[in-house]
Amino acid sequence: MSKYWSDIVSRLTPYTPGEQPKDKILLKLNTNENPYSPSSKVLDAIKSNVEESLRLYPDPQSEALKETISNYYDLSKSNIFVGNGSDEILAFIFQALLKKDAPVLFPDITYSFYPAYCSLYDIKYKKIKLDKELNINLEDYLINNGGIIFPNPNAPTGIPKSLVDIDNLLKLNQESVVVVDEAYVDFGTESAVKLVSHYKNLVITQSFSKSRSLAGIRLGCAFANEDLIEALNCIKNSFNSYPVDRLAQVAGIEAIKDENYFSLTRVKIIEARIFLEKELLLMDFEVLPSGANFVFTKHKSKDAMIIFKKLRELGVLVRHFSEPERISQYLRITIGTMEDMQKLISILKKVL
Amino acid sequence: MSKYWSDIVSRLTPYTPGEQPKDKILLKLNTNENPYSPSSKVLDAIKSNVEESLRLYPDPQSEALKETISNYYDLSKSNIFVGNGSDEILAFIFQALLKKDAPVLFPDITYSFYPAYCSLYDIKYKKIKLDKELNINLEDYLINNGGIIFPNPNAPTGIPKSLVDIDNLLKLNQESVVVVDEAYVDFGTESAVKLVSHYKNLVITQSFSKSRSLAGIRLGCAFANEDLIEALNCIKNSFNSYPVDRLAQVAGIEAIKDENYFSLTRVKIIEARIFLEKELLLMDFEVLPSGANFVFTKHKSKDAMIIFKKLRELGVLVRHFSEPERISQYLRITIGTMEDMQKLISILKKVL
Repeated sequence: MSKYWSDIVSRLTPYTPGEQPKDKILLKLNTNENPYSPSSKVLDAIKSNVEESLRLYPDPQSEALKETISNYYDLSKSNIFVGNGSDEILAFIFQALLKKDAPVLFPDITYSFYPAYCSLYDIKYKKIKLDKELNINLEDYLINNGGIIFPNPNAPTGIPKSLVDIDNLLKLNQESVVVVDEAYVDFGTESAVKLVSHYKNLVITQSFSKSRSLAGIRLGCAFANEDLIEALNCIKNSFNSYPVDRLAQVAGIEAIKDENYFSLTRVKIIEARIFLEKELLLMDFEVLPSGANFVFTKHKSKDAMIIFKKLRELGVLVRHFSEPERISQYLRITIGTMEDMQKLISILKKVL
Repeated sequence: MSKYWSDIVSRLTPYTPGEQPKDKILLKLNTNENPYSPSSKVLDAIKSNVEESLRLYPDPQSEALKETISNYYDLSKSNIFVGNGSDEILAFIFQALLKKDAPVLFPDITYSFYPAYCSLYDIKYKKIKLDKELNINLEDYLINNGGIIFPNPNAPTGIPKSLVDIDNLLKLNQESVVVVDEAYVDFGTESAVKLVSHYKNLVITQSFSKSRSLAGIRLGCAFANEDLIEALNCIKNSFNSYPVDRLAQVAGIEAIKDENYFSLTRVKIIEARIFLEKELLLMDFEVLPSGANFVFTKHKSKDAMIIFKKLRELGVLVRHFSEPERISQYLRITIGTMEDMQKLISILKKVL
């Protein structure tokens, strides 16, 4: 704390990202990265743009990238926003669309960046409790609110909501913005993108970090009615004219175009998840149903923190949240390749 | 305007960046980009990192990049902050350090993003008039304030302030933060980085977009006492854990290391500026003294808007600001290669 700080700084509760280990690790299964390289077409496209033109600013509107995304999802370019990772886009959404007299609603157990954004922009919020099985119950959100946001599938639980449930929520909540954070949607959860043309208050965010294997390049996108996109552009253009660099724009275009590779790696990850789920059950773990590239799992008798530490000692990094207490016995394990999962299982057997 | 927007959105006055032309242009002298390619060592380093590891998140703290910068400037890593372009860093500075009861002060003619940040974060500001010769007079800033920010050299005038003047300001203004925006400092203006260890309230921002030829990669840095850097980290970690991607971190490291190339291109640009200044004077232009990679110039009899338009028709893009009226007869011309400047002069001769 210092007299030079604005008041806001000491009120902040910053987000803590998963560890990026400096030492060599055997299995890094803690930050939901994709085990597969970006598509070779993506890498080639980036390489061929590493040249003299990097001296020039990127297109501030990322028009070519938006064009590619809009064709892929059959939307208009005016329904699309891109940013420096979906975290930046979520920050803009909180500031542009969720700061209201009534509180924004989100699950009590969810992506822990949401309350960080609220502290950053001084936004009121109310956490809605997950049900006994750690499901989001969307009926609980039909109360006075200044907006609703939840990930689908939810993180860190991985549990997906059906499109029918989301459609119902939107039918019954039309006076405030509903944000569906689809960072993990491509691993077996149905996207709500097709609802964008039906609801003026729906925003979908997606990430290139997980299913497109581009966490290192920082790219995300959002879909919404054009008047919501306009609000995001107002914020962006009052913050940073050029948030998405030249190489990220090119990478994004090729990642969308190479649908074969995308499908192939997606399917492999889903298969590895199913394999891991079965093996975990055999080892006396409970596993929540996952529509993501991770599982949230709890051993029937062994302490989660002890398993976490022992795995760490053996070079396996997973994620453990000590808070809230309700999930302190769970571990979140990122799905890797089938080989990774086999390695993990053999190490887990030793640990148990 | 929409019922879904937060109140802030309709109060915003977004920044308008210089045109990024889609059509082929003969000479692009409107956004102060460097005419020289990034160093070949930078390009090689980026290329060799375009591989499988892009699937992983970047180091959220950019430690290796900070290490390189700290060695170069003989500062501690805890005095350094890096971001997605210096625009992002300036935004964080306004939010973290300049939102106070008293207004932040900046020149009436300066980088027009400053009032945009104030509208974004609801910060009071007061514009201080440049003197008759369009100089910043730092004595005028010794009034009640919640912070002071100015570019050195100033933009769009290009006029530099001496280190003695800045040191004097800091001696007499120790109760609020003083930000020196050094986006253009490497083209003949003295940096105030060496004052960072002497004043707890000084923040310096720099950019890799101009003198390091990396506008396309989005990278900037800031220097300050560690308690001011801590405030910036609090904001950053409540906004986006990973604002600087893997390739930008590598590019920044090599750009700092290749000092030969940096010096070479810097000197060439300064020589081309001196050449252009002389030629403009011969053509009846007035030219403000510049410590930047651009000149701010006004013809003694011809209208600036007419010259601007005729240049545009002939494929030459420069920058013209219709507001405020006091600078509406000026053109801001980015310095290119010596060849670019010769081409410009021959076209200008036709236009006049």
